[in-house]
Amino acid sequence: MAALPVFTVVLLALGFSRGFQHHFVEEEPELVAGPSQYGSLWPLPQKVHISDVSFKLSSSNFQITDAKESSAGPSCNLLQSAYRRYYEYVFVGPKNQKRGRDQPAGPSEVTELQVWITSPDSDCDSFPTESSDESYELSVDQPVAVLKAPKVWGALHGLETFSQLVYEDEFGAKTINSTVISDFPRFAHRGVLLDSSRHFIPVKVILANLETMAMNKFNIFHWHIVDDSSFPYLSQTFPQLSEKVRNRDGYRIRYFLRYRPNSIVPTEHRFTSFETVPRFGILNETSVDWKSNPDIQKFMEQQGFGQDFTKLESFYIQRLLDIVTTTQKGYMIWQEVFDNGVKLKPDTLIHVWKGNQQSYQREMANITSAGYRTLLSSPWYLNRIAYGQDWQAIYKADPQDFKGTDDQKKLVIGGEACLWGEFVDATNLTPRLWPRACAVAERLWSAKEVTDTNDAFNRLAVHRCRLVERGIPAQPLYTSYCPREYKGI
Amino acid sequence: MAALPVFTVVLLALGFSRGFQHHFVEEEPELVAGPSQYGSLWPLPQKVHISDVSFKLSSSNFQITDAKESSAGPSCNLLQSAYRRYYEYVFVGPKNQKRGRDQPAGPSEVTELQVWITSPDSDCDSFPTESSDESYELSVDQPVAVLKAPKVWGALHGLETFSQLVYEDEFGAKTINSTVISDFPRFAHRGVLLDSSRHFIPVKVILANLETMAMNKFNIFHWHIVDDSSFPYLSQTFPQLSEKVRNRDGYRIRYFLRYRPNSIVPTEHRFTSFETVPRFGILNETSVDWKSNPDIQKFMEQQGFGQDFTKLESFYIQRLLDIVTTTQKGYMIWQEVFDNGVKLKPDTLIHVWKGNQQSYQREMANITSAGYRTLLSSPWYLNRIAYGQDWQAIYKADPQDFKGTDDQKKLVIGGEACLWGEFVDATNLTPRLWPRACAVAERLWSAKEVTDTNDAFNRLAVHRCRLVERGIPAQPLYTSYCPREYKGI
Repeated sequence: MAALPVFTVVLLALGFSRGFQHHFVEEEPELVAGPSQYGSLWPLPQKVHISDVSFKLSSSNFQITDAKESSAGPSCNLLQSAYRRYYEYVFVGPKNQKRGRDQPAGPSEVTELQVWITSPDSDCDSFPTESSDESYELSVDQPVAVLKAPKVWGALHGLETFSQLVYEDEFGAKTINSTVISDFPRFAHRGVLLDSSRHFIPVKVILANLETMAMNKFNIFHWHIVDDSSFPYLSQTFPQLSEKVRNRDGYRIRYFLRYRPNSIVPTEHRFTSFETVPRFGILNETSVDWKSNPDIQKFMEQQGFGQDFTKLESFYIQRLLDIVTTTQKGYMIWQEVFDNGVKLKPDTLIHVWKGNQQSYQREMANITSAGYRTLLSSPWYLNRIAYGQDWQAIYKADPQDFKGTDDQKKLVIGGEACLWGEFVDATNLTPRLWPRACAVAERLWSAKEVTDTNDAFNRLAVHRCRLVERGIPAQPLYTSYCPREYKGI
Repeated sequence: MAALPVFTVVLLALGFSRGFQHHFVEEEPELVAGPSQYGSLWPLPQKVHISDVSFKLSSSNFQITDAKESSAGPSCNLLQSAYRRYYEYVFVGPKNQKRGRDQPAGPSEVTELQVWITSPDSDCDSFPTESSDESYELSVDQPVAVLKAPKVWGALHGLETFSQLVYEDEFGAKTINSTVISDFPRFAHRGVLLDSSRHFIPVKVILANLETMAMNKFNIFHWHIVDDSSFPYLSQTFPQLSEKVRNRDGYRIRYFLRYRPNSIVPTEHRFTSFETVPRFGILNETSVDWKSNPDIQKFMEQQGFGQDFTKLESFYIQRLLDIVTTTQKGYMIWQEVFDNGVKLKPDTLIHVWKGNQQSYQREMANITSAGYRTLLSSPWYLNRIAYGQDWQAIYKADPQDFKGTDDQKKLVIGGEACLWGEFVDATNLTPRLWPRACAVAERLWSAKEVTDTNDAFNRLAVHRCRLVERGIPAQPLYTSYCPREYKGI
């Protein structure tokens, strides 16, 4: 069979740059990455001094060890497994470094990172609490770098910071500069909300995102596990709850609490919160259902509610809060419970998620003025997507940026990046969350004054390449390239 | 060490559904999936009749064969490899079907799909041309289904359609209904543009997306291979072109032309177009550079252009078009070359990419009124993202929807979905492109009258699960689940 002539279209992309605004006009200016004086540290520590003096690290001549004075030793599996993990992160990348592996340590080489837990109780076997100490101090010198922290929580953060200080020189050799860092979080509550009700999220995806949270010093995993759409929580006590689960798979929570024996939930994350009774529909109590349900109509008559479903709702919530109170647990509510005037315990935590900037700032002012503690999510609904560098707006929002007294500001305990699940599943969750959630992470960890968007861009561009190197498909911020690009599809 | 009491936050997600508009108000109504009378066919064939009579298929008792009358035989590697591929697609999923594998074929089983190329020249060893026949007819009966097509191009489309007719019954057994389909594309040019200049796209990602294009009956891969940002095309003739490449990797085009020996570019895709000289910056000729370049200033004086850079641009383009004309290839230009009044050959193809609906419809009217052929991309810039079911707006756009005569409409040869690369790399390209580009695929393939968004949603929801099953991380359209979810992260 004779081959027909090939019709090749030669596409001439002609026209000036005016004609090539394929990029469109952005609300935020497009930034182009350059080097930051803070390297690729993310989130930026409270106090950093990086000198020009640099040392090498060699995979054959480097170890992470317990300082002999440390209150945590070889029996602290939490730290030991973190040492192994961060050793891998430090030496991620091509294995064939230019420098000979058997070469003895030179005078300018860091051969050891000593981890020193200074408090008598390291917290190694504890679950973290709201007031756990997450601070640490890191001193990088040769031949020994020292990481000091009162508790294991700070040590875990410091290990991440140490790994972020390591870079490759022009020959690919792992390098670190002489550095002194003193660090602690600005806010105690730094969370990410994932929603496994609208789409099932495979366990391995959740675990990978827990790891990524730790790389960004998040400490709360807020798991919106069930909702109207599906009930994938498999309760051992009430198995009938999940009988009507529409997904084939479900979560056995024990598995998560045991992820990395004795560790991940209580370590990288202060505590894990599970939402209970997230919406009424699943209990056949959406407002529509309520109206059409004769039992509920009868109940409302008995209670004298008339046709006022708000009263029914308040009744329901009040009962629920009473029950929760008997469990001696704290509780956290979405803002509308406060807005609707339901009676709340003084230690109630109120989650602000509605409205534009003006509106959520007013809400934060009202809540704190009433003496309640609060956390912010309104500007951090990362399920909302837009074309361009939307991380900048995410980065600029500040939970303490509202009109109020210093005492009011102290009632702000942090915030959460929320990724609701209507349009998200395992196919797109991770790149949609990262590095956009990184912007929230820095806002919640770093000092209030850390607001230089250009410097943030420079550090974040490299940080996102680091996530990619660690196997996390974090999407690009803008036109760019990584030393080692993502290997999946 | 004593464990501290665990502080568990019980998050009460309280409030009516009014309080839970985490989903926000959408421009487009949210659709909920249900069954379509057309199953999961995508894009919808021109004529379909699916009966209620169903047959089984068994992996041990089914084969795809050449009809004995076919002009393509065992030597047509293009088809033979397609048979193997589509056999795999048909039997994708759990291997342990309920029905015993060694059971003999029952009376209601399809055991063979015969492929019959009816034209004396099958085109098996040809490259496709703009006028290649892509039509096919498919008849599913038992025990033999027959796929007839004048050329291999139609047969490839028909194989995809056959695979889309197969579904699983309640016991997981592969099932297909008695069906008669007659099909051909509405438009000849159905393309996807990928941009490897702003971010390097690994070869395996490009190949996976070429496969996905074939699953949606796209036939043009428009490769925006180089641009200002980088020049990853490694030319053997002009190696110095890519010397300044900012990415570490580059493309050797021969590799792509040889993907699946003798096949993919000329088969699933009619032709591959490479853009040449995509922007001026890379040639040091952006308008800014031009102004500051004394050589160019001198040249403009000599030509008598004064300070009118538009004249310089037109001169440049005219020269380029003259050169291209001597190569006997067709050419395709972005719309502004037409807008700027550059002299064009009558067979020039003009790519419309600018403006809102009113504006691009006016442009299509002007171009066709001047007698030129055109294709549309303005509503299909898939790099533009928005929250919600944006596939609906993509789906509703129609390239022939402008004021003009029938003769003008005939000058519209199709369109392209464009995914520019500023915010896209291997981490997020595939889920961002699919299934949004599927909406473009159906608009360009199916009959003009196929505009029922509800029916489209029902078919597309299942089609996207099919892509997921085939290993493509196509993102969800809305709250949903697939029989087998994506396995990556």
